[in-house]
Amino acid sequence: MRQAGRSLPEYRKAREGTTMMEACRNPELVCEITMQPVRRYGTDAAIFFSDIVVPLAAVGIDVDIVPGVGPVVAEPLRTEADVDRLRNLDPCDVGYVTEAIGLLTAELGDIPLIGFAGAPFTLASYLIEGGPSKDHSKTKALMRSRPDVWHALAGRLAAICGEFLRVQIEAGASAVQLFDSWAGALSEAHYRRFALPHSTAALTGLAESVPRIHFGVGTGHLLEAMTETGAEVIGVDFRTPLDEAAARLPDKALQGNLDPAAILADDEPLLAETDEVLRAGRAAKGHIFNLGHGVLPHSDPGKLKLVVDRVHETTRR
Amino acid sequence: MRQAGRSLPEYRKAREGTTMMEACRNPELVCEITMQPVRRYGTDAAIFFSDIVVPLAAVGIDVDIVPGVGPVVAEPLRTEADVDRLRNLDPCDVGYVTEAIGLLTAELGDIPLIGFAGAPFTLASYLIEGGPSKDHSKTKALMRSRPDVWHALAGRLAAICGEFLRVQIEAGASAVQLFDSWAGALSEAHYRRFALPHSTAALTGLAESVPRIHFGVGTGHLLEAMTETGAEVIGVDFRTPLDEAAARLPDKALQGNLDPAAILADDEPLLAETDEVLRAGRAAKGHIFNLGHGVLPHSDPGKLKLVVDRVHETTRR
Repeated sequence: MRQAGRSLPEYRKAREGTTMMEACRNPELVCEITMQPVRRYGTDAAIFFSDIVVPLAAVGIDVDIVPGVGPVVAEPLRTEADVDRLRNLDPCDVGYVTEAIGLLTAELGDIPLIGFAGAPFTLASYLIEGGPSKDHSKTKALMRSRPDVWHALAGRLAAICGEFLRVQIEAGASAVQLFDSWAGALSEAHYRRFALPHSTAALTGLAESVPRIHFGVGTGHLLEAMTETGAEVIGVDFRTPLDEAAARLPDKALQGNLDPAAILADDEPLLAETDEVLRAGRAAKGHIFNLGHGVLPHSDPGKLKLVVDRVHETTRR
Repeated sequence: MRQAGRSLPEYRKAREGTTMMEACRNPELVCEITMQPVRRYGTDAAIFFSDIVVPLAAVGIDVDIVPGVGPVVAEPLRTEADVDRLRNLDPCDVGYVTEAIGLLTAELGDIPLIGFAGAPFTLASYLIEGGPSKDHSKTKALMRSRPDVWHALAGRLAAICGEFLRVQIEAGASAVQLFDSWAGALSEAHYRRFALPHSTAALTGLAESVPRIHFGVGTGHLLEAMTETGAEVIGVDFRTPLDEAAARLPDKALQGNLDPAAILADDEPLLAETDEVLRAGRAAKGHIFNLGHGVLPHSDPGKLKLVVDRVHETTRR
């Protein structure tokens, strides 16, 4: 469960007086925060605590994560010259990631650790817009009007993102997840033309080492196209029932897809929806139970525990 | 083109010193603002200048439209008692709407005027959350945990919204549009259970008077369900190609669906996409060319004119 931490009191305590970027670069703190939901909920895997902009900051982009806003880029990238200044990631740039994963694998034992990175399109949107955007209008204008600059930028981001995943795998991650949070803002034609080749590049070369999970939000219209990245597992948000997704993607394992807002409901409807996700997931080649998106900030940890226990009771029977 | 005004200098000038709610209640100003894009672009229809919260304010809800934020509700509705206080709309509550439409039909002559209202689910989300929400978490919690309260609230909103549309039709609107801006945040199962019956109620009774258009954003997974409201025309956002939508909805006319972000691109890709929308739209039973969502604030009016002219050149040929 991505962003499970932010609803936990122990997370807020651990983060006190530390910015998000400082926290991501502190191996002991990354280890502690990654372990918190595993300890509290007894999940079957851990998600590495980091942020999709960490590798961008690591190659010298002036990016900060502003509470209540998200990533803010001091000097947005919009021209050929801007793209030329974007260098590739060197494993030494993110020694703290290697170190944190070393601590984590020792503590996790048999529990798998899932590493992650943001996909080129989503990273590019932050870099071009200068921060979070509802309409991605500058990004889409660049794609349409200067496809050469777009592909140069997205190509460099694919390399950074692939390298960031490779560092995590070499340090001991058992699986990786590529988040294309904003891909749902593209039509399938534009996704195939502008995003898919770069996400594929980011995931290529990691094959045969660990399973690769690919996820986006509002991507019901892109599921088939997303499988062409080569990912073994496709994340599905709550808008597409898992049995419907399984019929469309018979060769893929699926991850998802309880509506994060269901956590705020009473126990009875919450457990009924959990059961329905488990039932629908049986149609898939494989199913990783998860929320259909990140944990909402006001989620009650007791409700998340209820869901994890229900999943365990049902699947271990 | 919804929200065409906000990119126009003449709109900003007309609105100077006037709040959004004041503007919506001023018949001369409503008439002037509604006419502006018709005059500048020569569109084939006019969209009534108003806001989806106008009928809520008219029945006594303390709601304001805060620039840069959206509708903000002073006392959110969340309980049975809150719902009981929500009275129905009387045509006298919105005399300024009747008056504005009278002025408009005189000025428009043969050009049809499209009236509109927000759908019950979208209105309910503003009332329950207290303002715009990304996750609609309180709304969804109420649906799931207190379906009785939800249905009572949405039922009253359906009545208000139906009455608001009826007032516009009686005053002279040639068609009406029901906006369910947030419906895309629901799974199909939840849309069918919690939103569809109330949108259907809002549109029922208007049949046989004028064509009814139903539109949402990110509703590719709901198109078939949305037709069950009885609407003659379904609005499609840019994520679903019109030929694909036409294959799924052979009995409906379609409205849409140029990506609003395309307006910010260079002329060549903009016109290529305009042509593609026109081409794909030929597969539909009928096609109203439009953007797939509202006009983005930084759109260049010259680009919108270019698109309107291209549509006219092509369709009048």
